Amino acid sequence: MNITLLKLGGSLVTDKSHAYTAVPERIKLIADEIARAQISDPDLRLILGNGAGSFAHRSAAKYGTINGFVDENSLYGACVVHKDAIELNRIITEALLKKNIPVFSLQPSAFLMTNGKKLIESNLRIIEGMIQKKYIPFVYGDVIVDQLQGSTILSTDTIFAIIAAFLSTKGYHVRVIHAGNYPGVLDKDNNVIQKITPESFLEISSSLHENRIVDVTGGMKLKVEEMLKLTALGIESYILDGTQKNRIYQALLGKIKGTTISEK
Amino acid sequence: MNITLLKLGGSLVTDKSHAYTAVPERIKLIADEIARAQISDPDLRLILGNGAGSFAHRSAAKYGTINGFVDENSLYGACVVHKDAIELNRIITEALLKKNIPVFSLQPSAFLMTNGKKLIESNLRIIEGMIQKKYIPFVYGDVIVDQLQGSTILSTDTIFAIIAAFLSTKGYHVRVIHAGNYPGVLDKDNNVIQKITPESFLEISSSLHENRIVDVTGGMKLKVEEMLKLTALGIESYILDGTQKNRIYQALLGKIKGTTISEK
Repeated sequence: MNITLLKLGGSLVTDKSHAYTAVPERIKLIADEIARAQISDPDLRLILGNGAGSFAHRSAAKYGTINGFVDENSLYGACVVHKDAIELNRIITEALLKKNIPVFSLQPSAFLMTNGKKLIESNLRIIEGMIQKKYIPFVYGDVIVDQLQGSTILSTDTIFAIIAAFLSTKGYHVRVIHAGNYPGVLDKDNNVIQKITPESFLEISSSLHENRIVDVTGGMKLKVEEMLKLTALGIESYILDGTQKNRIYQALLGKIKGTTISEK
Repeated sequence: MNITLLKLGGSLVTDKSHAYTAVPERIKLIADEIARAQISDPDLRLILGNGAGSFAHRSAAKYGTINGFVDENSLYGACVVHKDAIELNRIITEALLKKNIPVFSLQPSAFLMTNGKKLIESNLRIIEGMIQKKYIPFVYGDVIVDQLQGSTILSTDTIFAIIAAFLSTKGYHVRVIHAGNYPGVLDKDNNVIQKITPESFLEISSSLHENRIVDVTGGMKLKVEEMLKLTALGIESYILDGTQKNRIYQALLGKIKGTTISEK
């Protein structure tokens, strides 16, 4: 069975320059593209995820949640960040449900736990069960309980990498699509890099264009690194511009316009 | 370590006679009582849960979610019910956070799965990890993925019973408090039954007063039956009236006014 993991980047679904601001018109257009892709390809099996954008990234930066319980406000702060993460996911969930997409919000911190930022609990049988019953699981970057430092954050990118690796070892054929508000991975001259492989990355990694807007979980370079790890499992990833009409729709049907990250 | 599971019943936090209507004034008062109890007893370790009330009970009844995928709307319906369940939990979470209570919403369907309504996945290590780090996990009645029938519903009562049994076998001393808008378990003459034991239940079960307002997960008798099962593990449960000022506060500090369900 083929499974597509589609991430709606924080830059795509929120206005990163304004705190707690979603972009409902764009979310609605994306929901429409996903709904149309499901009609065009009834065998499409999806897992969705959304970035935190101007929701949880703000509170996470304020409370330093990724590095754990550093002061007396950290425990409370971790709870606030988690609530913020749920909030954006809820807004998008409602838009998808309005288009009749059977999307089932799935809280990462309820099935993942870390110890010193290393994964120690990873209960992924339920996500597989959801897919078998044709639910579309919908995850998000989340506060994760850390047994050593109290809290950390796992980005949607990292959570997708965990899920993709699990499903791949279970025999599913997995691909990962990241839709943002940029045309792909850019070199320092702002040109889209068509393809990145583990080999080519060594040459270009120092010259990637980095977006300056705050992102507590690491930005483009970390994103590509997560995807490169997946190439060893035969998983291809794509980074594309979700603001361009039909680009997500076409990607879901296999036509990619953006950057491909693959083994060769 | 002592752990108290406190359920805020659907009848307490919502207006069951009006769809999708929370009772914010009451939720605020309850949040205040919990916050004061934490100050009075800094060793208080809590797990919270909320009933579905006039939120998910409505959609669950509409789509028949407890009995699975019965028609072509069931998959979509299960997703809607799940969204409704999250929505009420979110409203209460915000009220608790406003009182500085470190409450962490925890999605039951992300760590529990069933097959023909029997539990087959139950990943409870994370809830224990949360308590160890002093988070207050906050669960709710939820749509559960069922490998046989597609979906089912587990009530907060059942989820509490699962969590209480797990923590008890791990060596924690657990008690369960259910706060509703009724003074306790009532006999047919509307008098509060002070104590129910497995032995006394045999005599009184046929004459319990049942509330007529729709509750897809079973009402008072099922609630008491779940609690009676826990008595075999030495877990006491209490049913009390959360609308009465300070009754939750006092119960959290060990002073119960309502019905006690215990082994003897």
